[in-house]
Formats: sequence, C-alpha cells, structure tokens
Amino acid sequence: MASSYSFQGWLGLDKESAKGNLVWKSYEPKPFDETDVDIKITHCGICASDLHTLRSGWGPAQYPVCVGHEIVGTAVRVGSKVENGVKVGDRVGVGAQSGSCLRPDCEQCSSELENYCQIKQVGTYNSKWPDGSKSYGGYGDYWRGHSHFVFKIPDALPSDVAAPMLCGGITAFSPLIQYGAGPGKKVGIVGVGGLGHYGVMAAKALNVDKLVAISRTNSKKADALKMGANDFIATDEDKDWHRKHRQTLDLIVCTVSSPKMPLARYLQLLRVGGTFVQVGAPEDTIPAFNAFSLMAKKIKITGSSVGSPKEIREMLDLFAEKKVWTWNNNYPMKEANQAIVDMEDGKARYRIVLVNEKHLNESRL
Amino acid sequence: MASSYSFQGWLGLDKESAKGNLVWKSYEPKPFDETDVDIKITHCGICASDLHTLRSGWGPAQYPVCVGHEIVGTAVRVGSKVENGVKVGDRVGVGAQSGSCLRPDCEQCSSELENYCQIKQVGTYNSKWPDGSKSYGGYGDYWRGHSHFVFKIPDALPSDVAAPMLCGGITAFSPLIQYGAGPGKKVGIVGVGGLGHYGVMAAKALNVDKLVAISRTNSKKADALKMGANDFIATDEDKDWHRKHRQTLDLIVCTVSSPKMPLARYLQLLRVGGTFVQVGAPEDTIPAFNAFSLMAKKIKITGSSVGSPKEIREMLDLFAEKKVWTWNNNYPMKEANQAIVDMEDGKARYRIVLVNEKHLNESRL
Repeated sequence: MASSYSFQGWLGLDKESAKGNLVWKSYEPKPFDETDVDIKITHCGICASDLHTLRSGWGPAQYPVCVGHEIVGTAVRVGSKVENGVKVGDRVGVGAQSGSCLRPDCEQCSSELENYCQIKQVGTYNSKWPDGSKSYGGYGDYWRGHSHFVFKIPDALPSDVAAPMLCGGITAFSPLIQYGAGPGKKVGIVGVGGLGHYGVMAAKALNVDKLVAISRTNSKKADALKMGANDFIATDEDKDWHRKHRQTLDLIVCTVSSPKMPLARYLQLLRVGGTFVQVGAPEDTIPAFNAFSLMAKKIKITGSSVGSPKEIREMLDLFAEKKVWTWNNNYPMKEANQAIVDMEDGKARYRIVLVNEKHLNESRL
Repeated sequence: MASSYSFQGWLGLDKESAKGNLVWKSYEPKPFDETDVDIKITHCGICASDLHTLRSGWGPAQYPVCVGHEIVGTAVRVGSKVENGVKVGDRVGVGAQSGSCLRPDCEQCSSELENYCQIKQVGTYNSKWPDGSKSYGGYGDYWRGHSHFVFKIPDALPSDVAAPMLCGGITAFSPLIQYGAGPGKKVGIVGVGGLGHYGVMAAKALNVDKLVAISRTNSKKADALKMGANDFIATDEDKDWHRKHRQTLDLIVCTVSSPKMPLARYLQLLRVGGTFVQVGAPEDTIPAFNAFSLMAKKIKITGSSVGSPKEIREMLDLFAEKKVWTWNNNYPMKEANQAIVDMEDGKARYRIVLVNEKHLNESRL
C-alpha cells in the first residue's frame, strides 16, 4: 500500500542548524514494516536533546537530521503486526525510545529494566532502524517507526500538554517511581526548568510527604510553589542551606548538570539510605566528591534516562487523573527556527511545543 | 563491684605514634554500666583505621588513644542489663561499632539500617560514650564498653582468625549481602588486600556465579585464585581490560581508594542496573566521572561502612560453616610497634593480628 502523504520536515544540515538554521525539506522515511505506525503530526515538543543533537554536542550527528521526540498526532497507518492496541484514527504519541533494540528476543529489553538494552540503541531520530534506514523525528508532518514506543494519549490530556511529557515528563517521572516517591517520602528536585517542573508536579501527584524545589536563585520560587513544592532552597542566596536542610530528604532528582554544581552539599541533604538520581544529561563530568559521604550514610548515586513503555503509560494515566498539566509555550510549526533560538536562550516556561496547525485543523484536535 | 584487673594498653600520644611510637600505659576506662561487658583481650587485629586514627588522617585524634577494633577475648564481667546472651566466661569479640548511638529509642539504629544512626557516633575507640567518658580500643589487656557490638564467637573459628573479621571481614561482607551477592550474580572485588581478600572469600562462600579479582598488577593473582576468584584483571598490565570485560558484572565492591583509580572503567564492567560499592575509606575524593555512565545503564554508586550486629552474626556463622579463614600474620602484643610499622609498609598478607600471649595461656584458647 502506497502512502497518500509525503514526509517533509525541518532538517538540520550541519552544526549551524542549532542556531535557527533548519530548512524545510522532503526526506525518505524507512520502508514501512508491519510492526510500524505512521503518525500525522499535530504537536512536537522541543527537548534539550534536540539542541545537543543539532550541534553535535553528544557526538557527530548523522546530518541531515530531523529532530523531535515528543510527538503527538493521529495514527494514519498501522502495521498488521502492531500488538499494542493502536488503531488508525487514534490520537497517539511517540517519545524518546532510548536504548531499545526492538528485538523481541532481547533479554534486557524484556527484563524489568525494559528499555535499557545496550545491544543496539534505536533513537526516535538521528539513529538507524534495524533495517539500516535512518530514523527521523517530529519537527515535520509525519513520523514513521516501530510501534513499541507509540502510545494512545488519554482523552483528558490536550495534545500540546501531552507532547512534552513523552520525553521531559517521563525523564522526571521514571526516577521518582523507581525510587519509591510517595506517601512517607521526602523528595527534592534540583532545577526548576523543563525537566524540573515535571519533577515537582509529578512528586506532588505521587503524594510525597515533603517536596522541596532547589534552584540557584529565588527567581522561580513562586512558580515552584504553584507547581506543588512546599519548600524552596536558593543555593546562591542562602549561604547556610546545606546545614539548615541537612538530612531532611529521602530522594533527590537532579535535573541539571554542571561540573560546578554543589554535589557534596546536595548529598548532605539526604537521610541515611537516601538516593540521588542524576537525570540532567551532561556534556562533561559531574564533580569529584569524597566517598565518605556515601559510606557513612549508605547513600546511592545513580542515573536514569527517559523511561520504559510501562512507565510512560503509568505516567500518562496518572497525569490525566491528577491533572498534571505541562506549563508550555506553543509556537506554530513554521516558526521552528525561532522556537529553537528561544529555547536555547532559556525562554521556555517551561516547555516549548511546535503546533502543526494545518494538521490540527484537519484532525479537529 | 570493683574489678580485680587494671586497664593498660598501647597508647598513641601524638601523630608520631603511627610510626611505631606507641607507649604501654595504664588508662582509666569508662565507669562500668549494667549494659557493659569487660573483655579480657587475647587477640586484636590491626586495621587501616587504626593507622588513619593514630596519624590524625581522618581528623584530629583525641590523644591519648588506644586503637584496635577487631577484638577477641573472654567476657570477664557482664552487666545485669546485657540482653544479647553473652555470659561471663564466653569467648566473645567486639568490632567497629560505627555509627551507633546506642540509644534504644533511636529510630535509625532500630531500622533495617540498624547501625547507621548519625545522631551520635560512638566508636569502639577514639570516641565518647554517652556518659562522656572516652572509649579505648583493643591494643591492650582489657576492653570495656556497651554490649551492643559484643558477639559470641562460633566455636569453629579460632580467635586469631575471627578477630580481623570484626572490622575487615564485615566491611567486605556487608555490601555483598546488601546488594544480593549469591547464585546468579557476577561479582568483582577491586583490591586484593586486607579488605579485598575477605571480599573474594566471602563472595565465594556466597556461591556467586562469577568472581573476578581486580588489582593493578598480577602479583597477587595466585593468592586471589586460591581465595576463590575464578578470574583476575591486572589493570596496569592489560591495556584493554575495560573493553574485554565490558558489561560482565552485576556488583563491584571497591576496597581501595585513590583519586587516580580508573573509576569510569570500573563502571564499564557493570551490566545494566549494576551496583558499585565503595568501602575503601579515603582521605581524599574519588575521581570525577561522566554521569552518562550512570544514566545509560542505571548504575548505582554507593558506599558501605562496617556492618550491623545482625550482619556480623550472619557473617560469623557463614564463615564458620564454610571455613572462610582469614589469611593472617600473628605478632605478640608486646611487638605492637613493629606490627604497625610492618602494616604501614604493606607487609600484611593479609591481616596482622596482635596476640596477647599472657592471656592466651591463662584462658586455654
């Protein structure tokens, strides 16, 4: 069956594209496979990963690239071997399918660490499908790819609100549920940005006992309290913060990364047996620290990246039920270049979403 | 009841004592409390902590200090409120009671993280008991202190073999059981020294599937294989070790500490979801590393220090049953100064034990 639509999108041709030099072009999608879904894109969130990739910050990008892995739209073609219940006409999303090899016999993909196979990573974009063809993302009209990371979006969630959850939301949500955030637990979220704002709202939705947002200054304090934090630490403005809040938290999710971040002081905030989870993806190292801080309190430092399909479904249902709404700024798809410039300039409050208006009108969403 | 014995031991009077300048002197023990036990010392292991303390390497020591927290001997006085079954005449040991405040109402001491209370640390030596009096260690004739960390030694374990287990053994054993070392698990032990030799033997006793000793050179390879390792990595002699052994281990217990240790490469050895536990106590920081290594594989870095009374009992029983025998070098108590010089010079293969021969003869042990 031939498609009645063509694949076009905003392509980055080189490192300069990250400065707002994407060009709108046609590209050749992967050959359709019976486990694939085609999505007619209505919305795509802008993720920091998109900028890291466009400027080859995490390694050389496979230009031309079409970035975007926070995609929502309508399923317009569904392969006969798609097994997750997605049907033509469904409103669906696809997120960052980090680390899944998509092989049904993969031991790691089918373990409880579901999508953390390291055998072969297939990214939603800037990657290679098992058949060797390139993967392209959501800054465009259509997305084609394996159904493993394609999900029905709950009716209660508007599409622009749902799209950025598929990478930003799950990246903050997954470590919270992995490490038991819920009643009885005291949680800190470092960074009130695209990831951090989800961290605060998700921890609130999970009914933690205490929820502290940690930022450098007080500039986002009012926002953080509105998102659900019941305390706020400004590390540049309160010299004594690490002593005042010493041993008060069970879990810290750190959404920022800098070799200068006060890691040893963050660790002081943890109680015995506490966990520090790094989710802010760095281009360099995290600071050196004295291992006594780990030994004396049996603290764990770990990391987390995106989340599994099971966790994504759990997040979408919880967010729909508890009305966890993304704080988003919408831009028309045709203004993608301005949007990435504004994103890079830190103007997002707190996620930027590209809206493909022509598809929006057609699909009544 | 007055004691018919006096407290004398090898005291360190200043930093220079670490160089073999301990002096044999009397000291005033804590007032006897009904929860206390007096131990007539027959054996005391030498632990790296003793040297760190004598030279004020972990902070200023409270001179005069009598170090030693790997003590075995005979219980010669047992308070009326001692509740762990120890009786006068029993062969008992006392280890490093790190981090226990000894208060019965302490939430953290009574949790599953039993001895990791941070409210008030009472060390076996160089510390203060709740009544304000100083604690003195086991390089001497008698030890007096709270019964919480006093244990009956299983009959099958000779005293010189048992003594160093009470800090060295438990420090290596505790992280193995905390993180599930056993059938189905692949374990690496970094460092084949006082702690590492217990790590290898304990992992073997716990029937792990694969057991790799990791050292800088091959000089201890034969010993490590004899202790139970079934593979050996010499990081200075095999340039490609981190690639060859990539993603082969579930758990690494690191018994050494250096700001130059190849931490990022150790982490490469871990499988998805693996754990790296630091137990080698540093005087400085561990190296900076890129958090991607944690995020991509959900690796945990944590630390552990000594172990709880419950874990110590479990270790003693297992080691007795499986004949896990310390590799020890015995010195007469009167040669304590030579012993600490030899210890500092790295001559221990693998633990040095002071034998209080006059008590040994009297007690028929």
